[in-house]
Amino acid sequence: LRFGFPEVVLGEPKTVEQLLGIVATLVERKQTVLVTRLQPDKAEALLAAHPKGEYHAVARIFHLKQGKPKAGRVAVVTAGTSDIPVAEEAVLTAQAMGATVTRVYDVGVAGIHRLLRRREEIQSAHAAVVVAGMEGALASAVGGLVGIPVVAVPTSVGYGANFGGVSALLAMVNSCASNVATMNIDNGFGGGFYAALISRTRGQR
Amino acid sequence: LRFGFPEVVLGEPKTVEQLLGIVATLVERKQTVLVTRLQPDKAEALLAAHPKGEYHAVARIFHLKQGKPKAGRVAVVTAGTSDIPVAEEAVLTAQAMGATVTRVYDVGVAGIHRLLRRREEIQSAHAAVVVAGMEGALASAVGGLVGIPVVAVPTSVGYGANFGGVSALLAMVNSCASNVATMNIDNGFGGGFYAALISRTRGQR
Amino acid sequence: LRFGFPEVVLGEPKTVEQLLGIVATLVERKQTVLVTRLQPDKAEALLAAHPKGEYHAVARIFHLKQGKPKAGRVAVVTAGTSDIPVAEEAVLTAQAMGATVTRVYDVGVAGIHRLLRRREEIQSAHAAVVVAGMEGALASAVGGLVGIPVVAVPTSVGYGANFGGVSALLAMVNSCASNVATMNIDNGFGGGFYAALISRTRGQR
Amino acid sequence: LRFGFPEVVLGEPKTVEQLLGIVATLVERKQTVLVTRLQPDKAEALLAAHPKGEYHAVARIFHLKQGKPKAGRVAVVTAGTSDIPVAEEAVLTAQAMGATVTRVYDVGVAGIHRLLRRREEIQSAHAAVVVAGMEGALASAVGGLVGIPVVAVPTSVGYGANFGGVSALLAMVNSCASNVATMNIDNGFGGGFYAALISRTRGQR
Amino acid sequence: LRFGFPEVVLGEPKTVEQLLGIVATLVERKQTVLVTRLQPDKAEALLAAHPKGEYHAVARIFHLKQGKPKAGRVAVVTAGTSDIPVAEEAVLTAQAMGATVTRVYDVGVAGIHRLLRRREEIQSAHAAVVVAGMEGALASAVGGLVGIPVVAVPTSVGYGANFGGVSALLAMVNSCASNVATMNIDNGFGGGFYAALISRTRGQR
Amino acid sequence: LRFGFPEVVLGEPKTVEQLLGIVATLVERKQTVLVTRLQPDKAEALLAAHPKGEYHAVARIFHLKQGKPKAGRVAVVTAGTSDIPVAEEAVLTAQAMGATVTRVYDVGVAGIHRLLRRREEIQSAHAAVVVAGMEGALASAVGGLVGIPVVAVPTSVGYGANFGGVSALLAMVNSCASNVATMNIDNGFGGGFYAALISRTRGQR
Amino acid sequence: LRFGFPEVVLGEPKTVEQLLGIVATLVERKQTVLVTRLQPDKAEALLAAHPKGEYHAVARIFHLKQGKPKAGRVAVVTAGTSDIPVAEEAVLTAQAMGATVTRVYDVGVAGIHRLLRRREEIQSAHAAVVVAGMEGALASAVGGLVGIPVVAVPTSVGYGANFGGVSALLAMVNSCASNVATMNIDNGFGGGFYAALISRTRGQR
Amino acid sequence: LRFGFPEVVLGEPKTVEQLLGIVATLVERKQTVLVTRLQPDKAEALLAAHPKGEYHAVARIFHLKQGKPKAGRVAVVTAGTSDIPVAEEAVLTAQAMGATVTRVYDVGVAGIHRLLRRREEIQSAHAAVVVAGMEGALASAVGGLVGIPVVAVPTSVGYGANFGGVSALLAMVNSCASNVATMNIDNGFGGGFYAALISRTRGQR
Ligand SMILES: Nc1ncnc2c1ncn2[C@@H]1O[C@H](COP(=O)(O)O)[C@@H](O)[C@H]1O
Ligand SMILES: Nc1ncnc2c1ncn2[C@@H]1O[C@H](COP(=O)(O)O)[C@@H](O)[C@H]1O
Ligand SMILES: Nc1ncnc2c1ncn2[C@@H]1O[C@H](COP(=O)(O)O)[C@@H](O)[C@H]1O
Ligand SMILES: Nc1ncnc2c1ncn2[C@@H]1O[C@H](COP(=O)(O)O)[C@@H](O)[C@H]1O
Ligand SMILES: [Mg+2]
Ligand SMILES: [Mg+2]
Ligand SMILES: [Mg+2]
Ligand SMILES: [Mg+2]
Ligand SMILES: [Mg+2]
Ligand SMILES: [Mg+2]
Ligand SMILES: [Mg+2]
Ligand SMILES: [Mg+2]
Repeated sequence: LRFGFPEVVLGEPKTVEQLLGIVATLVERKQTVLVTRLQPDKAEALLAAHPKGEYHAVARIFHLKQGKPKAGRVAVVTAGTSDIPVAEEAVLTAQAMGATVTRVYDVGVAGIHRLLRRREEIQSAHAAVVVAGMEGALASAVGGLVGIPVVAVPTSVGYGANFGGVSALLAMVNSCASNVATMNIDNGFGGGFYAALISRTRGQR
Repeated sequence: LRFGFPEVVLGEPKTVEQLLGIVATLVERKQTVLVTRLQPDKAEALLAAHPKGEYHAVARIFHLKQGKPKAGRVAVVTAGTSDIPVAEEAVLTAQAMGATVTRVYDVGVAGIHRLLRRREEIQSAHAAVVVAGMEGALASAVGGLVGIPVVAVPTSVGYGANFGGVSALLAMVNSCASNVATMNIDNGFGGGFYAALISRTRGQR
Repeated sequence: LRFGFPEVVLGEPKTVEQLLGIVATLVERKQTVLVTRLQPDKAEALLAAHPKGEYHAVARIFHLKQGKPKAGRVAVVTAGTSDIPVAEEAVLTAQAMGATVTRVYDVGVAGIHRLLRRREEIQSAHAAVVVAGMEGALASAVGGLVGIPVVAVPTSVGYGANFGGVSALLAMVNSCASNVATMNIDNGFGGGFYAALISRTRGQR
Repeated sequence: LRFGFPEVVLGEPKTVEQLLGIVATLVERKQTVLVTRLQPDKAEALLAAHPKGEYHAVARIFHLKQGKPKAGRVAVVTAGTSDIPVAEEAVLTAQAMGATVTRVYDVGVAGIHRLLRRREEIQSAHAAVVVAGMEGALASAVGGLVGIPVVAVPTSVGYGANFGGVSALLAMVNSCASNVATMNIDNGFGGGFYAALISRTRGQR
Repeated sequence: LRFGFPEVVLGEPKTVEQLLGIVATLVERKQTVLVTRLQPDKAEALLAAHPKGEYHAVARIFHLKQGKPKAGRVAVVTAGTSDIPVAEEAVLTAQAMGATVTRVYDVGVAGIHRLLRRREEIQSAHAAVVVAGMEGALASAVGGLVGIPVVAVPTSVGYGANFGGVSALLAMVNSCASNVATMNIDNGFGGGFYAALISRTRGQR
Repeated sequence: LRFGFPEVVLGEPKTVEQLLGIVATLVERKQTVLVTRLQPDKAEALLAAHPKGEYHAVARIFHLKQGKPKAGRVAVVTAGTSDIPVAEEAVLTAQAMGATVTRVYDVGVAGIHRLLRRREEIQSAHAAVVVAGMEGALASAVGGLVGIPVVAVPTSVGYGANFGGVSALLAMVNSCASNVATMNIDNGFGGGFYAALISRTRGQR
Repeated sequence: LRFGFPEVVLGEPKTVEQLLGIVATLVERKQTVLVTRLQPDKAEALLAAHPKGEYHAVARIFHLKQGKPKAGRVAVVTAGTSDIPVAEEAVLTAQAMGATVTRVYDVGVAGIHRLLRRREEIQSAHAAVVVAGMEGALASAVGGLVGIPVVAVPTSVGYGANFGGVSALLAMVNSCASNVATMNIDNGFGGGFYAALISRTRGQR
Repeated sequence: LRFGFPEVVLGEPKTVEQLLGIVATLVERKQTVLVTRLQPDKAEALLAAHPKGEYHAVARIFHLKQGKPKAGRVAVVTAGTSDIPVAEEAVLTAQAMGATVTRVYDVGVAGIHRLLRRREEIQSAHAAVVVAGMEGALASAVGGLVGIPVVAVPTSVGYGANFGGVSALLAMVNSCASNVATMNIDNGFGGGFYAALISRTRGQR
């Protein structure tokens, strides 16, 4: 519980039996449960056993709340509509950690004015998650606009020389904005977790 | 002379003797001479033989005008000061082809307002060359702001995971703006040439 | 409408509901609609709702004309028959933007005389799109034959060390012809759009 | 001044004249000056003009304090002695931003007990910078030990299949610890900046 | 029989007919049979023909013992539960070669204390196989804890910038622990074989 | 002497002492000597000891003839002048093996008519070596023009995304002409050797 | 017919209608037909229309003989049984061109004595095709044993860090044997074609 | 001292002062000293302070013996003469650990009979280090000949598509011989250390 939060369970490679066992243990210990990258059919089995849980299909997350964790404010920003599943994974993770989340979606650099109009909303958060595929330029644009830490999540959205997200990953790692740090490709969970962690005030930790 | 312009000479790998020979032949034929990527010591030898020529040290270009080629208006845009040598190679090439060039320098996405202030200058050109290293996000930002063709030139500026310009190249090739086409890394000559070619009106061709 | 043309809609990752909504909005505004990379089943739903639209199965494009955009002449050139779907995406995009398009297909460098016979047709256009996979050599060959801007579109056609189109992409980015600029792998839409944009005369813009 | 801190100047590619000009402007505006990746000979020129400045040779940073920025506590952790120059760049940057920095050096995973002994020192900071080359495993080990955000900085230390730092970068981006975000290879400045930014309390911002 | 052990049969690309033939020949020669990467349906055919054989579904290995090979003690260590199929391939291979195997599973570096508690079990073996995906840090951590040869097996477990196991492979090849040598990605068979070979005493060879 | 020709000596990594020893041995055995990639200073030492030898500075080859090997006709074709050192390495190697060599230089695809004019010269050889850097398109163009085996030698000529010759290597390996096989980057020796080997008639072997 | 042989048809990407058309044309012109990489269902349609044709399922080649082309002797060598489909593609192509082919299969370097026993068979050919995946070492081993040209065909056989055949391709391109030239990954057709071309005597050409 | 042997010191990146300090400490504790990758000028300083030490210029190792470690028999095998510096690093490391070392040099696969003649010498060791660059095929050939563990060390010897040793590294990681494990490029120290570790009998450990 080093984060005042249990280790999150990666659902994708586990069997239903393994998942039922793990979730039962956590529930017994009165801990919050978060299962990520969970396929719909396995989610049904978890919901049947734990009717208080919730499954978010777009984000592919199963969540069973226990207690009330507290964190600060997080903004989740996306370039296009195809990035939304990864962004929602970030949103739900940050919320599960107790953060208040503002969604700022579909503000990619090819239409920079949409982003400029939303600047205040992002700046008023304690940390921003920026989710973008293709050339990943949004992370630098947001980093240059606001004075808070930006957690960049490259996505595999695109085709051809995007190499499954490598183009966006490189753009983010090479960002000329100094307030940008980077997560793995499609790692919405990581982005939401890290931003929520930053957002906690000392009292909250 | 398929462009109404002689083939440009790549100076870097040639010996002084080879270069003197080639330039003499072109001068005899009353053609404009453009030698790119030319080292200073070789430039001196060319200037001694052809006092009417000019050597531009930052752009590393030797230029000897003959006649008056005509083209339209080109904007050359850069992200940072380190990109200027490549940008100047583009500027001088476009000018040698008869284009009128506007420089819009140091308007990288980490300070997006500097770019927005210069929008009109870029839009009023017939084509824009965008020169940027590191994450190369500027090409998408310019592409999204203007309605003219953008020629993107990635530079090797940066370090670490920029992989000598690959990060910027990938960003440009994956640009979500549909008016962006890409040149080789550090190919300022190509960017200036291609933009000037676009800028020519039919009468001029 | 910065190109006198609405943003094109990327159909592949969107749901039918999202697409029906977007198309309805554009139709209301009396704007031309272009949906690219559209799967056949989604196309049927769009055609049912908008009987005046057309779906081009090879190019995977849905098109609904409104008004008469105007552009110049574009040539679309391919190396082999496997490159045709990407080429047709370019053709239809350029036509939708108002360009007159000449198809010059199946003129790969392994039979250079077929290409030489078609030289005039390409040269008389304002810009050429060259679509080629495998070693992508056609872009350089066309670039060397004509005096107009060439927009090179690498395709993923080939196998083994073509790395899904990387071999052709690299060939085009490294082209020794100075009138060649490059698009993303399989980006026929981008090639057609960029060439049509170049082809517009000032009066047309 | 979106961070309550001027943009940092990248010294490496700039001429002495450019640097003297930039520093003079910042001093006039009573702003703190930080020039990174500065070569010793250029540093001498800056010191001659600004005797109150300091040059840190290992970190290659020129620093001229103005006012007293405030931030929280940062720990800087390294795997080996060869990573120290990058780590010192992080230390000095964080200190310049007002952070109190604890150095935890030479605690690589091949001798895990040295790291375990220093756990408390790291945990008591608001954020940790972990600097490591070769296999970059230290970021995951630290991330697994503490409950604070970890900023991972891969270094180019190593040889052969480290590919100039890529092995460490990949290890960090793929970290199984969820509190790890990554910077560019050898970007000590970025690591220190980001950690100091996290460490600021709201009152301090 | 240069290892006192027949060449192992790679089952995946072979037809049932080819496999039945090969196994029949080995059985006739009274040699142990080991078929790796064997699909369940082909396994059934082998079991029908050779009821004394065993098929291990997780490890995908068919094994038919003949005689009693002898080897020493091997420890097989994994980072997470997703690595278990590769680890079991190592376990069964080493056992088939006569080794006594200790499983030390689910001791990844993000929870280093679980690994420390199992140190003695690993150290008392003659060689350890370490199976890990994602950032592959476990190989260095184990290498640093024990004085025996470590055979590192990277797995393709992970996503995004793990590049199908390349991140873990690079981490292992660049390990700062000098007692670590590396196998191909997902090559559990190789890891078990090599460790068992090391574990043989001279008398046993 | 499996080729009726001694093993060729790679000069670059060897010391003068090693080279003097090896050459003396071969001379004693009355065998032809060919030392490739030989630095000028080491060449001087060999020439002093063996005045009958010759050093070709451009090709960096030391050659000492003994007897008269016999082979057929080889054409060596280059794209540009920067490829000549590699081409000359091929020429001298083929000549040393007894081949009659025709040089067809500076016929790159950007000026395809120069190549067409030389077609007969190439076709009349028994094998052609094609030496090209940048996009390496010449190999396919020559392959498509003639009916003889083409040995493609990519060169490292170019910059940026040529990746030290990889772009040309990939173009050649992916050639759509079926009479093209490929050598290592800058391996002029290999190209000349292989073409000369092909050119030998049975009687000559 | 620059090889005295029609262009071979790549069957994979073509429709049945396209193939029936092309084959009918070639048959009319009394030319031999070779369709490679042909799927079984398309083959049936061709066989129904042309009962004199033959389909070789392992090699995936449709062949319809017309006349008697003549070539020399070719050896086709493979490392393992998984390489046989690619090898058979080479065998059938060479035979279709008139060559006499010797198969030397399953002689990989891990059992070098099997290769040594077959040395004479290979040496007596005019050219050898060596087909190998994984580490591709067989090309160098054969190259070192015989004095004839070796055409190396890397295969995608293997897993993990074989990267779909790249490991074998690199091994072959870097071969220390000077009589080795390389084809694309899995390009059995190319290997057989090139070796048969070499094997033709002058009279035969 | 987990190997009954002190941690070895990597000399290259350390200053003379750091090295003198470290060596003095080890000498005081009566431990053997091994400094690898040590530049000649730094070696002189160590020799001056510790006259009993030895510096091996080819292997770039400084060695100061204390006591008599014991290990078994190790064979070190190389492909060519250019691999010798890496091989000598392996030899000296294994000897420093108490192993008896047999050198089997210059037995590359292009002349397989030289290797076959030395088979017994290799087989009689407890472990073999195989050092090879270019295509790295020697590791598989040796692995296939002997029944002992092979430690493969790829070298950066070669040029072009050897990518600084990557071609050899991939060949070794993909070896079809099951008794081959791999070290980092040019890591002769690691190869010697690992082989000596294997060679120790239990009594010796
Ligand atoms: N086939 C295509 N390839 C590349 N870009 C496209 C394609 N179709 C549309 N676009 C661009 O993608 C963006 C549309 O994205 P979206 O808002 O998700 O529909 C616009 O900027 C288009 O110009
Ligand atoms: N060592 C460094 N590494 C990465 N970025 C830096 C470094 N030093 C300064 N920067 C950033 O680079 C930009 C300064 O670029 P310039 O305007 O060329 O001085 C600013 O955005 C800084 O935040
Ligand atoms: N320039 C070269 N490029 C590639 N291989 C070469 C070259 N020169 C010689 N060789 C080959 O390298 C080997 C000679 O290596 P060595 O024994 O070190 O002289 C022989 O197999 C030659 O065929
Ligand atoms: N299996 C194959 N692999 C590589 N190239 C092939 C293959 N089969 C045919 N070709 C070549 O591909 C071209 C035929 O392409 P197409 O005109 O599309 O049939 C010709 O140049 C053939 O030499
Ligand atoms: Mg950054
Ligand atoms: Mg584009
Ligand atoms: Mg170009
Ligand atoms: Mg992470
Ligand atoms: Mg190691
Ligand atoms: Mg080929
Ligand atoms: Mg070769
Ligand atoms: Mg192996």
